[in-house]
Amino acid sequence: MTAEPVSPTSPAPGATDRPAVRVALLGCGVVGSEVVRLLTTQASDLAARVGAPLELVGVAVRDVDAPRDPVVDRALLTADAEALVAKADVVVEVVGGIEPARGLLLRAIEHGAAVVTANKALLAEDGPTLYQAADAAAVDLYFEAAVAGAIPLVRPVRESLTGDRVHRVLGIVNGTTNYVLDRMATDGLELADAVAEAQALGYAEADPTADVEGFDAAAKAAILASLAFHTRVSIDDVDRQGIMQITADDVAWAARTGHVIKLLAIADRRTGEDGAEGVQVRVHPALVPLSHPLAGVRGAFNAVFVEADAAGELMFYGRGAGGAPTASAVLGDVVSAARHRVHGGRGPAESWYAALPVLPAESARTRYQVRLDVDDRPGVLAHVSAVLAEHGVSIEAVRQTPADAPAEPAVEADDAPGVARLVITTHEAPEAALAATVAAIRDLDAVREVVSVLRVEGA
Amino acid sequence: MTAEPVSPTSPAPGATDRPAVRVALLGCGVVGSEVVRLLTTQASDLAARVGAPLELVGVAVRDVDAPRDPVVDRALLTADAEALVAKADVVVEVVGGIEPARGLLLRAIEHGAAVVTANKALLAEDGPTLYQAADAAAVDLYFEAAVAGAIPLVRPVRESLTGDRVHRVLGIVNGTTNYVLDRMATDGLELADAVAEAQALGYAEADPTADVEGFDAAAKAAILASLAFHTRVSIDDVDRQGIMQITADDVAWAARTGHVIKLLAIADRRTGEDGAEGVQVRVHPALVPLSHPLAGVRGAFNAVFVEADAAGELMFYGRGAGGAPTASAVLGDVVSAARHRVHGGRGPAESWYAALPVLPAESARTRYQVRLDVDDRPGVLAHVSAVLAEHGVSIEAVRQTPADAPAEPAVEADDAPGVARLVITTHEAPEAALAATVAAIRDLDAVREVVSVLRVEGA
Repeated sequence: MTAEPVSPTSPAPGATDRPAVRVALLGCGVVGSEVVRLLTTQASDLAARVGAPLELVGVAVRDVDAPRDPVVDRALLTADAEALVAKADVVVEVVGGIEPARGLLLRAIEHGAAVVTANKALLAEDGPTLYQAADAAAVDLYFEAAVAGAIPLVRPVRESLTGDRVHRVLGIVNGTTNYVLDRMATDGLELADAVAEAQALGYAEADPTADVEGFDAAAKAAILASLAFHTRVSIDDVDRQGIMQITADDVAWAARTGHVIKLLAIADRRTGEDGAEGVQVRVHPALVPLSHPLAGVRGAFNAVFVEADAAGELMFYGRGAGGAPTASAVLGDVVSAARHRVHGGRGPAESWYAALPVLPAESARTRYQVRLDVDDRPGVLAHVSAVLAEHGVSIEAVRQTPADAPAEPAVEADDAPGVARLVITTHEAPEAALAATVAAIRDLDAVREVVSVLRVEGA
Repeated sequence: MTAEPVSPTSPAPGATDRPAVRVALLGCGVVGSEVVRLLTTQASDLAARVGAPLELVGVAVRDVDAPRDPVVDRALLTADAEALVAKADVVVEVVGGIEPARGLLLRAIEHGAAVVTANKALLAEDGPTLYQAADAAAVDLYFEAAVAGAIPLVRPVRESLTGDRVHRVLGIVNGTTNYVLDRMATDGLELADAVAEAQALGYAEADPTADVEGFDAAAKAAILASLAFHTRVSIDDVDRQGIMQITADDVAWAARTGHVIKLLAIADRRTGEDGAEGVQVRVHPALVPLSHPLAGVRGAFNAVFVEADAAGELMFYGRGAGGAPTASAVLGDVVSAARHRVHGGRGPAESWYAALPVLPAESARTRYQVRLDVDDRPGVLAHVSAVLAEHGVSIEAVRQTPADAPAEPAVEADDAPGVARLVITTHEAPEAALAATVAAIRDLDAVREVVSVLRVEGA
């Protein structure tokens, strides 16, 4: 043990004799201002890591006079994003949305700049356009911040696992809905109240649609599936279901059966009915057993499992959103792109040689938990069980209790049956068979209502 | 949702019209034979990802006639490793140990080959020699498989987090000791029995020294600290303590106080007493609260937390050893290196500009749990508490019970006190103060024995 530097010689001389790499920033909200802060406070570290200083040449914003974080030098602000991208070596886009982000990124690429973007919506809707432009111009296109915030996930999937064969990606990739579901689970809030709380705390937008309807998670699922399976998956290929129909009652019942409800993004590579390989990508709320690591992912954290043939199961966990965590991911990409400017080389291009078909959602295999209110009389369970058997769906567990909801006993005749609740958890079966089973159960005379149908994952 | 390929056009034409990238493999044990298997079974995928086929030009082994996995073509085997490395574009080393591995890697680099190694011992002992040679020859040096097996950890720390400031790395990086400690915790085995079981199952070597004495974990800690803090840390800089002194009694007591014992690798970047920054790297068994994610890492799995200023806390989890998982990491590096051969560019070079001093182990701040057998009479706790207070160490919890061990009651005089056991858990304090406290406690008249001293981490 020594208090001296461990090397007898000095590190390589400072990098400041090389010309600066010019960085332009598009957007200066929560993430953008953190990018500026990191570029400023870590300037000497970044210069040493890149091999040349990074020079922030401008920050494009809609309104240069709007009040903003004092870390941003007023002289750097410009409303002319088009002019800005023309004079940068690396363009960072944290505006979000399709336009003007796409047009500006394409313009930057035309000018020969490397681009770093956090724009999951654009990549999931029209990634190939960006990839092709970057390829044609031989510039880098990096987007670590587009998926799971600070968690290094894009680079590991795109580069570290490229010698392996990934067959599944499964995880929690939207912090807002995870916060909402977590609040419902811990304090019994109804969805609307939990969403309102998330909005008040700044975790959810004024219009929470992108989060609660699963669009954000679907975009990330599409990006991850594309990278993991070397194919093209757009957000339109993702079978998407948000959390709007989840009730406090669902969450309470989940707890009673040893589960917690999470909004999951799932991408599977598997063999379809015709024997050919394909991918199936979906986003939906699911019951996750309390013993599964994803059940313990709280608040706005993200966690993603990647399963590969040789590597086995890997998990990545961390902050999925927020200014500083997202800026960390952006800056890592900026350093990579800037290093290529200084030392030559390029990051990975789009890899979609596998060109796998997207399999229909109905072909997925999953498990269901179905809650239904039935007449409380002998033989009902036998009827219901028979319907499952007819559809080739086998039952893992049945729990039967008097329904919690007041069952209008006052108006019932003396001989009318009361109401019982059945909670049926199935074994894994094709999605199509499960859906048909639920439809058939709904038609049974003794079934008053199918209260909820939720998938079960992570067994 | 569509069953058609999602892109209207075909992927880029096959890569096979480019000349093959020649890969040489040094070593053909558990990992090497899996590398051969993946190179063979995934040949077309790898060619598409690289942009050119990978051609395995030879496998260097000590004894070409030894019986081995039939996947390896006898015609590829050679005992002449020196000749083999001279004719490869990418040399993969999975021999382990210092020599002949180092000499062969340096020879490969001299010949202009990129090198991929899983050799944590060599990197931790003499990494700068390899780095400098690779730098001088402008070739890649990749080593994802050297730390935490299949888990993408080297690339994320070396590349994804390079725009951030890492201040701590903490994790379980040795699967063998984790298996041993896990078996002790779950079935109450004594250490020797658990080690023997691990040997029988192939999880531990015939000579388990490198694992149980913490050398393997220390090598990985040194590598991670070097990458995370942009400095040089060798295995000699790591304060190392293995698990040999851990008893079944320690493990049982850990459980009683809500902990599990894990062998942890910890690298901290912090300010030393002189106000200058430095790094402190250590490997030791520690009590981890059952509620901490590391407590749930079972068997031969690894998990590593990385804490950075902007990213916050990140966790990486997966298989830390084994042929296929390690080969997955090796192949990812081979693809990266081969892509550079085909498309130009280079992976990251050594980054040690920070040149931080290694702080002495005594400067670390940690928490202790001390178990001691004391005379069972009034006032003893007051004496012990006073010693802690004198050293500025504050107590978080004290638990007092009659000692479990038979306390030689038969030979005691009537008025001699019995034996009580104190379990004292401290708040965080400097390692030096804690060590001095334990020494002073040991000197107290009423203290019969300090039974065990373990650090507590992950609170």
